[in-house]
Order: sequence, then C-alpha cells, then structure tokens
Amino acid sequence: MLLEKTTRMNYLFDFYQSLLTPKQKSYMSLYYLDDYSLGEIAEEYNVSRQAVYDNIKRTEMMLEEYEQKLQLFKKFQERKKIIEKLKGLPFQSEMKEEFDRLLHLLEKLD
Amino acid sequence: MLLEKTTRMNYLFDFYQSLLTPKQKSYMSLYYLDDYSLGEIAEEYNVSRQAVYDNIKRTEMMLEEYEQKLQLFKKFQERKKIIEKLKGLPFQSEMKEEFDRLLHLLEKLD
Repeated sequence: MLLEKTTRMNYLFDFYQSLLTPKQKSYMSLYYLDDYSLGEIAEEYNVSRQAVYDNIKRTEMMLEEYEQKLQLFKKFQERKKIIEKLKGLPFQSEMKEEFDRLLHLLEKLD
Repeated sequence: MLLEKTTRMNYLFDFYQSLLTPKQKSYMSLYYLDDYSLGEIAEEYNVSRQAVYDNIKRTEMMLEEYEQKLQLFKKFQERKKIIEKLKGLPFQSEMKEEFDRLLHLLEKLD
C-alpha cells in the first residue's frame, strides 16, 4: 500500500468513522490500523476476499465523499499550520504558561 | 418558534447542510433562514403542509444525529471560547499584528 494513501485514509477514517456501519468500521480498522490482509479479514469473517475488497473500496469512496462535503481533514491540517505559527511567536509575559495551555487545548479539540 | 432552538438549528444546518438532499436543504433554508411558514413552503412546492412538516422534522432529527456523531457545533463552541481567551491575553510585542491575524484565520476556518 502506498504510504501516503494509507496515512490519508487513516485520517479520514479517524474523522468520519462515526458515520460508518459496524461492519465497515471493522473491516477498515483491521485493514488500515491493524494491517490485516484482505485474505485474513475474509477468513476472520467467513466471507470471500472479493466481498471484503468491495466493502473496503466502497467505504474509502464514502470517506472521500464525506471529506469533499465536510472537509474536516483539510480544516484540521490548516488549523494545525496556524497553531504551529502561533507557537512560534515570541510570547514574553507572565501569561506564557496560559498561552501554551490554550494552544494545547485547541490542538486537542481536533 | 423558540429562539434558542432556532439558533441551534441554524448552526446545525450550517455545519451539516452538505449532507442533506436538495429538497431537505430548500425546506430547511426557507423555514429557518427565510422564516417562511409551513403553509407557505407547502404552497411554493405544491405539496401538503403535513409533508413539509414531516420532511423538516426528519431533517432536524438527522442534523441532531450528525451532531451526536461528529460534534462539529460543540467543538466550534469550545474552539470559540478558547480563541476568545487567547484574544484576552496581554500580547505585547511587535508581533501583535501577526498574533491577531493568526487568530482571525483560526476563527474563519469554522
């Protein structure tokens, strides 16, 4: 699997998994997070390799459609860039600790 | 209509409208943004008042379900609070302008 594609799918799965069915979630999680092969998933669920493949391909398309509509991953990346820039600003005052705390809270929200 | 509920629905509609069908979007937009009555929408689309009512109720439930799953409105509110606090920090340096610019960018992302 191409590393870049895997990383993107991991993120999309992370952002939109709540919109998937339990079966879609299981297949995606085994394939992308636990690095199972299609054959291993097929065996685990007692279905054909093709069925697993079709399900995962369909799910990937759904995730890309959700991203096209909601752009959560894109916004996450843009927000991250802005927060990095904020972190780089020379903030010198007794409030530095509070500044860092707030930026950390912002990051955790994504 | 209760004002608080209207405000919430406006926000949910704003966040999740890309996931609705064109008809759902039209009804919601006329009802919540343009303040049409159910009767006026029914007349416009040549359907029964009850059909419009059912469609809008169903859409409201869908929006609440999306919010339960993705929490975009909740996170938006939390992010807004954090950004307000950041704005309140005594940032004194030649970078103040850049600080404000970055916070403004963060706000626009939501």
